[in-house]
Amino acid sequence: MIRLGILISGRGSNFVAIADAIANGTLRNAEVAVVLCNNPGVAGLDRAKERGIPAHVIPSKGRIREEHDADMVARLREYKVDLVCLAGYLRVVTPTFINAFPQRIINMHPSLLPAFPGLHPQQQALDYGVRVAGTTVHFVDEQLDHGCIIVQRSVPVLDGDTEETLSARILHEEHSAYPEAIARVLSGDYEIRGRCYVPRVGVSAK
Amino acid sequence: MIRLGILISGRGSNFVAIADAIANGTLRNAEVAVVLCNNPGVAGLDRAKERGIPAHVIPSKGRIREEHDADMVARLREYKVDLVCLAGYLRVVTPTFINAFPQRIINMHPSLLPAFPGLHPQQQALDYGVRVAGTTVHFVDEQLDHGCIIVQRSVPVLDGDTEETLSARILHEEHSAYPEAIARVLSGDYEIRGRCYVPRVGVSAK
Repeated sequence: MIRLGILISGRGSNFVAIADAIANGTLRNAEVAVVLCNNPGVAGLDRAKERGIPAHVIPSKGRIREEHDADMVARLREYKVDLVCLAGYLRVVTPTFINAFPQRIINMHPSLLPAFPGLHPQQQALDYGVRVAGTTVHFVDEQLDHGCIIVQRSVPVLDGDTEETLSARILHEEHSAYPEAIARVLSGDYEIRGRCYVPRVGVSAK
Repeated sequence: MIRLGILISGRGSNFVAIADAIANGTLRNAEVAVVLCNNPGVAGLDRAKERGIPAHVIPSKGRIREEHDADMVARLREYKVDLVCLAGYLRVVTPTFINAFPQRIINMHPSLLPAFPGLHPQQQALDYGVRVAGTTVHFVDEQLDHGCIIVQRSVPVLDGDTEETLSARILHEEHSAYPEAIARVLSGDYEIRGRCYVPRVGVSAK
């Protein structure tokens, strides 16, 4: 069983999607060991409690980033986490964190990277006038929204879309894309060449 | 009848796709008035001749860009061209050209802009490791591969893709995306807000 540590900041809808994928057998050989949240009182914490999954708040507000990350790493180690999944975790992680889990931290960003990194990617996409948007699951490296890409999904931008309608369409794709990306990483049947995710010869990617 | 001027540099496969879309009724109220090419002896010129479409070579090699563009503009005016379509035309057009046909020059670029502008976008996409690629039809402005987007189409990047296999998959999409973009522009039922193509209220985009 691979132990996942899921980091959230709010409602945790991607955490719920991952937990559901495990519960219904779509995502095998994995369990959510712990949910960590940097904001107290958010709905994602209730979702974890309802499922009997350990959840802890490690408040980030007013704290030095490196020290907060050291506390996060300690908690993840306490729960013997193998793979860290950022799921709507609205903090930039520091090298302290990244080096504690080399190639074992993945993130979801709601754009087709390398387009529209950073904040409000859906609104950035609408302002640019793209007709295709999407989402990316990638390994976390020391540059923002930059590491090796594991899965991408596209969605159309429709006439009259707002940030809300486009975000909802992207989120719907994320709920299956994130478990798929986790399954790909858990399989181990890949290597990273340059900055590319390359399934091993003879292994077909699902 | 809207008169199209199509600019090519090589085999002209997108020109052929546009001509075919007109011939089979997919693209209505348009005709190809002239094909202009900056390279002598390329296959696209033969495709024009076979179809009885006027085609001219205006060699660009060794010429000052502004002067070459002035000759191109003169030819397009001679043929009373309403809309200029760059279709694999491997020259950057100058302000002279752009100002001669304001909001009436469109280009196809084989990436999901704003990702991967410039040369070899398919190879750029493979090197970056994206899992979704695509193509963009956009109005031409004074920045390279930058103007308001009319149509985008996505294609998956498959394991083992090379520049050739990915380019072929994108080209297949282009052959229907370019006529669709031309039909959108010819309809006139849109406005450009900021840098966004916005269909007018009550008009559904196809």
